[in-house]
Parts: sequence; structure tokens; C-alpha cells
Amino acid sequence: MGSMNTYITNQRIELVKAALGQIPFDLVIENVQIVNVYSEEIKPGAIGIKNGRIATLHVPQISSTKHRIDGNNQFAIPGFCDTHVHIDSSLLTPAGMIELVMPCGTTTLFTDPMEIANVAGIRGLKAFLNGTKSLPCHIFMEVPSRVPTAPGLETTGGVLDFNDVKKLLRLNSSVSLGELDPSKVLGFKEEYYGKINTALSMGKIANGHTAGLTSEELTAYACAGLSDDHECVTFEEAMQCLQSGLSVLIREGSTERNLDRLIRGIIEHKTDTRHWMFCTDDKHPNDIVNEGHIDFMVNRAIELGLLPIKAIQMASLNASSHFRMDHEIGSLAPGRWADIILTDSLQKIKPNRVFFKGRLVAEKGNVIKALGKSSYPEWLYQTVHITRGMNPNDYRMTARDPRAKIHVIEIVPDQIVNKDIISNLDVVDGNILTNVKEDILKLAVVERYGKNGNIGITFVKGFGLTKGAISSTVSHDHHNLIIVGVDDTSMATCARISQEIQGGFVAASGEKVITTLPLPLGGLLSDRSPTDIIKDLEKMNEAAWSLGSKLPAPFMSLSFISLPTVPELGLTDRGLIDVRNHCIISPIVE
Amino acid sequence: MGSMNTYITNQRIELVKAALGQIPFDLVIENVQIVNVYSEEIKPGAIGIKNGRIATLHVPQISSTKHRIDGNNQFAIPGFCDTHVHIDSSLLTPAGMIELVMPCGTTTLFTDPMEIANVAGIRGLKAFLNGTKSLPCHIFMEVPSRVPTAPGLETTGGVLDFNDVKKLLRLNSSVSLGELDPSKVLGFKEEYYGKINTALSMGKIANGHTAGLTSEELTAYACAGLSDDHECVTFEEAMQCLQSGLSVLIREGSTERNLDRLIRGIIEHKTDTRHWMFCTDDKHPNDIVNEGHIDFMVNRAIELGLLPIKAIQMASLNASSHFRMDHEIGSLAPGRWADIILTDSLQKIKPNRVFFKGRLVAEKGNVIKALGKSSYPEWLYQTVHITRGMNPNDYRMTARDPRAKIHVIEIVPDQIVNKDIISNLDVVDGNILTNVKEDILKLAVVERYGKNGNIGITFVKGFGLTKGAISSTVSHDHHNLIIVGVDDTSMATCARISQEIQGGFVAASGEKVITTLPLPLGGLLSDRSPTDIIKDLEKMNEAAWSLGSKLPAPFMSLSFISLPTVPELGLTDRGLIDVRNHCIISPIVE
Repeated sequence: MGSMNTYITNQRIELVKAALGQIPFDLVIENVQIVNVYSEEIKPGAIGIKNGRIATLHVPQISSTKHRIDGNNQFAIPGFCDTHVHIDSSLLTPAGMIELVMPCGTTTLFTDPMEIANVAGIRGLKAFLNGTKSLPCHIFMEVPSRVPTAPGLETTGGVLDFNDVKKLLRLNSSVSLGELDPSKVLGFKEEYYGKINTALSMGKIANGHTAGLTSEELTAYACAGLSDDHECVTFEEAMQCLQSGLSVLIREGSTERNLDRLIRGIIEHKTDTRHWMFCTDDKHPNDIVNEGHIDFMVNRAIELGLLPIKAIQMASLNASSHFRMDHEIGSLAPGRWADIILTDSLQKIKPNRVFFKGRLVAEKGNVIKALGKSSYPEWLYQTVHITRGMNPNDYRMTARDPRAKIHVIEIVPDQIVNKDIISNLDVVDGNILTNVKEDILKLAVVERYGKNGNIGITFVKGFGLTKGAISSTVSHDHHNLIIVGVDDTSMATCARISQEIQGGFVAASGEKVITTLPLPLGGLLSDRSPTDIIKDLEKMNEAAWSLGSKLPAPFMSLSFISLPTVPELGLTDRGLIDVRNHCIISPIVE
Repeated sequence: MGSMNTYITNQRIELVKAALGQIPFDLVIENVQIVNVYSEEIKPGAIGIKNGRIATLHVPQISSTKHRIDGNNQFAIPGFCDTHVHIDSSLLTPAGMIELVMPCGTTTLFTDPMEIANVAGIRGLKAFLNGTKSLPCHIFMEVPSRVPTAPGLETTGGVLDFNDVKKLLRLNSSVSLGELDPSKVLGFKEEYYGKINTALSMGKIANGHTAGLTSEELTAYACAGLSDDHECVTFEEAMQCLQSGLSVLIREGSTERNLDRLIRGIIEHKTDTRHWMFCTDDKHPNDIVNEGHIDFMVNRAIELGLLPIKAIQMASLNASSHFRMDHEIGSLAPGRWADIILTDSLQKIKPNRVFFKGRLVAEKGNVIKALGKSSYPEWLYQTVHITRGMNPNDYRMTARDPRAKIHVIEIVPDQIVNKDIISNLDVVDGNILTNVKEDILKLAVVERYGKNGNIGITFVKGFGLTKGAISSTVSHDHHNLIIVGVDDTSMATCARISQEIQGGFVAASGEKVITTLPLPLGGLLSDRSPTDIIKDLEKMNEAAWSLGSKLPAPFMSLSFISLPTVPELGLTDRGLIDVRNHCIISPIVE
């Protein structure tokens, strides 16, 4: 007979037996209006559940059942899917994230754990996802395709090579190769073509992201075997993707807000929606608490005029089909996991009750049972090893002339792109000084993996600090320590405290620490409760504001400002990056 | 770097370069109206092709190109998919079948080679499909799930055990577990659950067939992890499948004609069509020649009122998505194989030109170049080893009384089900006689794999022979030699000749052979040209009619009459089968 998974076989056989009425259901949800995303019908019925899966929608009145729940004639719809989310840049552990999204009806997260992989490699990634199988949410992996993001231009804690990616793609919980940088494809890097081909040959897909491509480049990018995009801002961009055979993952995160324009376009042009779905990419915990998650997107789409059944499909079946998991999730159909939302209305979906694998996990916006902390290995709490940067002198930038011409990274409000501006700064005793009046502050990236003690330094405009410094070990995508400061002493204090708390956010003034938000898991995450983290984040923002910053989310801006892949300038531990030319340049203009 | 397929990588890189205009296309099809099945738009354009794949739909006017073809402003649509077809019961080799369907615009066959597997096991199956990669049609395998179909009740040449199925599922060309008998699922046979689970865990699907199930059984069947059905006759049945999360493969074969009712239902109920597609299952070569293939279905659907874009999607993208091959086929989108039909009209699609992987393979209903014979191993031409049945005495059925009460299989016209009737037959010298007046003839299944010399015998009503015998080594699903005859001598002649020609159809009278259609490949197929086979089949039918038969297709009826899985009676080499009770019974009623 060969190897056969007897457990799975028996679970299935029991499911079939329950459907035939030969053994009792574990649970029947009676008296519901079942929304069928395959037939696009709504029919009164009852959902018979066995071993966590849907056995039938036609439960006989006199069926034997262990438990019964009255659905009060509410609508039963499939649990929602977030098709692209980086849990590991949410400051929360998977359990923390799930505690927030579960009451919103999200029962599946397709996640690309590229951040933790940059910090701790394949070992860290596995530790991060270990134990998620027991959490009340499906977590499917989009295998990080580019760790590091900018090879040769940055030091990272971990690297995923071709074989690592292959190993990860083999996992049952992996569904795709994660978002692949167009520059890798259009730059003809063989390694990335190899990764795409590996994913495709395993029956998995390759996620794209196409921001900023010309239509010719988009076509070429699609040629490489990509399947989707999650960065369309305009309806025209989305249609270009569709025309190239790419599905559209509509993104509505904290900062990227593309839902309204795209949905309005769909409605106006009566576009078929089967290749459209939803994602958040990066949505801050407090925004999830305030607005909701995928339910927010579904409701907004309906409000804008989309038929509820189409909006629900976009949050369920379209996603599961795209990732080729439609046999497991994304519908209320026999054999699928019993991930079910009960709602009073389809015009405004409010997840009154949420079931995951047939178990009630949330009711009226609250989780039924706190998830508790996941357990992680001790080494994942020990990823900050700063060998240089504790001393104020480490942040000196010297010049001979009394004035120095400097490349300054200027923040563009509400965007992750930045501008390369040239400023003239005073030089005193050979040290180039910050200029508080002009808001030209020092920016440093401190290598924090104990590998080489690199420190990259330049100047930045837009943070608005008038004293002190703030820092973060969340710093895309390398996640070294990034510090913006008025003076070198405050910056050194940030480094010292970051080392002490093993990563997180720090605000300091001189040698005094003002406040911290420790993120000890890889320097990225905290395993404390989401509520506590949201509170502490508020405190951190207040501290930054007290130091003079006017930015709405100073630590968020800090975490994106150094990206070596987003124009015009980046900063890594190796120095200032000319993003368009993909090389290191001197901060001082000769 | 690990193992990376450099050839594939380089092909892809060239494709991307061509899309970017950096290297020449291999071919540009200019001046076409491109039908985009993703965006549901029709736009004028040109298709740039490189390495057999579509590079772009936006070819610059001055692009460098090796070859150009003027599309004359015709519509360009994706090549068609047959989602379920048994090539090996068409009497043709894959090359023969492709020669017929290619001019019809079919560029992909999803095929379940269960017949050849029953004859020659995994070795025969592989030999059968070997070489199909070089043919101008994609052949994807639906891995046979049940070889033999009726374990314990029949002798077959080959058996596919769990490990064989697993091995076959691993092949890149395999896309699913082939149609699974509901009796195996609803009978809780663990082996079949294991096969389904193996397919699903590899990211492949499991094809179903649900004919005759109650709605409760259908739900239970879907619970096992099945993905589709191809046997829906009524729209209500199809909607039940859809409600259970099963896609609907509309079947329009030679005898099963479900298209009109299902399409009318879709139109009447404005049903979304994304989960609907087309298949032929079994369509005889002459019917393909006379009517067409999938193009026939598309055109009929349009004629009935379906929007052309929806009908085209059903024949392309819906199929490729269902089988999770949408990254390779089913659309005119960058990166996909350049399988293209050019047609003057979308109201009545006539494949004026058909391209496969960017190569013109058919024009105006004719193939550009005959495919020639595939080469098969010698042993696949040597599968008939009859050890008993050459002697008229081998067909004697004896009784002591002067009259014997016998179970007779009665043909139901135009259906594969049959009736179990009881007849009284004369016994002379201990031998039970046929009764030509009442059309009660002798039916025998002769084990032909050299394994045990079994001969199963009973009587049959409906063939109408008044003299002689006809025989076939195509005999579902075991494919032993089946003979219907008026007298034992004619039957023995059939056996002798079948052995001589190594399988096929025989018509004989006494010791004289009337005519034969040799099917030497596994006793199922001929590698001669389709035209010749169609002609010879006509001759065979005429021979059977000359012997008295009134059946429209006597050899077709013969090949299905003995099925041990279709009620009420079956006949195998082991004897008469009571199908409902799944056991062997005596032909003589005690």
C-alpha cells in the first residue's frame, strides 16, 4: 500500500460518514441563511460539522449531533482571507495578530515572513511560524523570495539562498514564492528565475509587485511567471495587470489605501471580479482595532456599490482559488474547513460569531479565549549584538572645510519614496553638525548582528526633532538599528538601550532614556498583548513628539526611511545608497 | 545555488528580453483582435512570440522579428481544452487523436489513460504517453484512480496500486487523480481516500463523477475532497454539484449529450460560468470529423445565447484554472504558451489558423503537416495471449434439464445500463443453445492476458445477429476479449483471429473470418491514420449488419455491455456479475 496518512484518511472517512448520517456531527449550526460562493445563491439551511470540516449543508431535522447552535436566521458566510500580510512587521507575534483579526472574521492569513528571515534566516523563520498550526487561523506562507533585499549593499542577520527557498516551498503550509522585486526579474538575475520556476514546478504560484513599472515592463515582468500584484493604485494599473494575466490583490493598509479607487473602477466598468481579492500588506494594530481588517474592505466595497456576494467572494473563494487552496478554504462547501462568519446583514457585515475549524473563536467583536503566548526559542530573543555605536564618537562625520555639502534624505509626507537634496552644513572641529533650525538631523544605521560593526551615516530632513534621538531595530528590510538624532550622545544612548532591551523602539535625550517599546523577538516583535503594545506605541509617539517631531507616526517613518530599494536614497550599515544606480555613494558631495 | 534548471531559466530570460524589445521575437502575429479572457476585453494588437510562449500583446511597430504573419484583423482566442477525454478508448493513438482535434482548435487534452493501464499497467501507460511531449498538443494526465475498476471480480493485464498512483501523480504532466468511482468513496475504501489525499497534498486535484447519486450522497462524495463532475445531465444536477463546491465539466461526447440542457440552464438562470468547462469524455473519431470537437461545444453554446467571451473562457481559462495550469495555458497572456486560434467571427468560431506553442499547426481545417507514427515498444504490440477459447467446446454451457433458466443481459438502446431478464433456453445434448428467433445469443469474456484462461459466459439480448459472431478486445474496463455469437464455432474463430492480429474487432461466420479491424497497440488502438480507421470501422459495422445486427454501433455496444460496474448485470472472465451486490452469480437460475 505504500505510505498513506491514516489519520487524515480516517478523519475524511468520518466526515463522509457524518454527511451520510451514519455518525453524529460534532456541531450543527442551525437556522442560517447560507451564502454559497460557488453557486452565488443564498439558501436557508443548517451546517453540519465534523472534525473541523463542513460535512453538509442539508442537515436532517432529526440528525444526531453532539452540539447545536441556533444561528437565529443570520447569514453564514465563509471566513475572510488576507492575501498578503507581513505579520512580522506588525510588532505582533502571529498569536497577537490573530487575536486582533479573528473577531473581524479573518480566518486565513497568507503571510510573507521576510522580516524575521532578514533577522534570523531560515531558522528564525521556522521558529516564528512554529506553533502557528495550533492557532485559530490558517497561516499560509508566501516564501520570502529576497533575503536580503539588496544583496551586497546591506548586512542582514539572515540570508535565504536558493536551497533555503526550495526547502521552504516544499512545506505543505507554503503556497507561493513571496513578492518578487521587478528589478530582480528585469535585471535578469538567474537565481530569481530559478526560484519562480521551482515554485511553479511544485504547483505553487509566484507573487509579484509591480509598482512603478511601465506597461512594457509590466508585460515583461508577467512573462517571468508571476501571478499577481498587490500595489495597484489606479483602476487603469489594475486593468493592465489583469490584461497581463495577473490577479489583483487590492491593498488597504495603514498608509496604502487603494480600495476605493479600485472598487469604483470595477463598478463603473462592470468588471468581472473573479481575479480580484483583498490584502492589507501592512496595517498597524491600532488601525485594525479602530477600523477592522478584511471585513472593513468587504463592507466598504459593498457601501461603494459592489454586490455583497461579489465582495464576499473577493474575501474568500477568489483568494483560495488564486492560491490553489480552494479545496480547503474559501467557501461553505462540503469537505472544506468550517471557517464561518455569522452576520445579521449582508449590506453591513458584522461578524457576530466567528468559527474556525468548527470552533467558536470570537463573538461580538471579542475573542472567546485569549490565545496566550506562543513559545519561542531563547535565541530568538537574543538577536541584537551591537559591537560599535555605544560611543558618541561612533556617529561623528568629519570634513576638512568649514562647510560641507551633504546628500540629505528628505522625507516625502505619507510616502515611502524620498528625495535626495543637497545641503550645506557647518563643520566645527572637523565634525559636520546637524542643523535643527533647518531640520537637518543625523541618520545612522548601526549593524546589529555582531557581524562587522558597520555604521552608515548621513543626514535626513523631515523628522523635526529639536533635541535627543529616536531609534528602532525595525528597519526595512535589513532591520539593523536605525537612529535619527540631534546629537551624537543621544544617538549613542539609543544604541546602548537598544542593546539592553534586545531591540525595539527607543527615545532618548542626552544620556537619559525617555521611554522604550521593547521588541525582543528578533528585534521586531513583542509577545505582549496587542492592547499593551498599542498603548506603548502611543507613548513612544508622544515621546517623539515631545522631542519636537511633527510626524504622525515617527517610528513608522523611521522604519522605512532607510530602504535601499526605494528611490531616491537609502541608507544601510554599509553607507548611503544611490537606489537608482544600486550602489554606495559618499554622503559628502565632492 | 542548488539544482536549478538552466534551460528553463534561459528560455524565460529570453522571453522577458523579447518582451522588453532587447532581442527579436521568433514570430509576430500582427493585426489581430485579441480576446483577453482575464479582462474580458477585445483589443486590436499584435502577439509577439518567443520560445513558444507569448511575450507581449503590445508589439512595437518597428520591432525586430524573425517572422511575421498578418492576422487579417481576425480574432485571436486561446486554444481550447478538453478537460476529460479517454484517448485510449478512441481507437486512436495520441498522435491520431491530435491530428483530428488540432484543426478544431483544441490545443490541450486532459486525459485519463485508464484503458491502457488496465491492459498494460504503469509500464504500458508510460509507453502510451511517452513521446506525447513532442506532439503539437498539451497532454496532461488525470492519473487513473481505479485499475482495476472491479477488484476481485475481473482479471486485467495491469494493476495500478497505491504506490503506482503516487508515482504517476508526481509527474509534472499529471494534473489530477482521475475520475473516482463514488462506490469507492461511499464504500469507505481507505486506499482511495489515500489516493485523493496524495493528490491534494501535491497541489493537484481529484476528479469526480457523480452520476446517479442522491443529493445526500453527492454531498458526502464532495466531502472526500473531489473537485468536479463530468456527468451532469440536467441543470439541477449541475447546480447541486456547484452548491457542493464541485466544478461542472459539461460533457458532449458521441453518446452522452449534455451540452444543450446545461447551457440553456446557465442562460436562463444567469449563472456565473467560472466553474463550468467542456469535455468530450468519449467522442468517436468519425463524430469529431463530422461535427468538430470543443469548437463544436463553444459554437453551440454561443448559438444557444451564451456570450462568446464566456463560452471561450469555458473552453480555456476556466479549464486551465481548474487544473491549476493557468500559468501555462488557457489565455493569451504574457508567459503562457502561444496556443492561439484565429477566427473571422466570434459568433461562429471557425479555426482558420491554429498555433501550438507559437507554431502554425493547422489551417482551414487541415493539419499543416501529418504527425507520423509515434514509436511504441514491441511488447505493447503483444498484449493478446489467449490460452483458452480457440476451441468451440470452450464456449459450451451445459445443463442437465432439457430447458434451462438463464440470466440474460438485455441491452437498453442508447444507454450503458442494461437489464437482467430471465429466459428459458433449450438444452440439446447437455448444451444450452442460443435462440436466434428471440435474439438470445451467447456472450463470452475470454481472459486474454495469458494469466488464467478464464472464460465467463452468459447470454445476451439485443445484438440481433442471425449468424456468426463478432468480437472485440476493447471491453471496458478490463479489456479482455468479448465475443457475442450465434454459434460456438464462430466464437472460437473470433478468438483465434484476435490472437493472430493481436487484438481488435473481428467479424466471423463459422470458421471463416469476414473482416477485422486490428488494434494491435494493447488491443485497444491502431497507429494507422484516423481516416483509415474510420473507414475500417465502417466496414466492421457493415459486416456486423450483414450478420443480422440492427444496432447502430455494434462494436461500441459490445465494448460496454460487459461492464461489471454498471447495473444491472456485468460479465467478466470470472463470470456473471450482479453489479448492485458486487458479486459473481451463476448464469443458470437454480
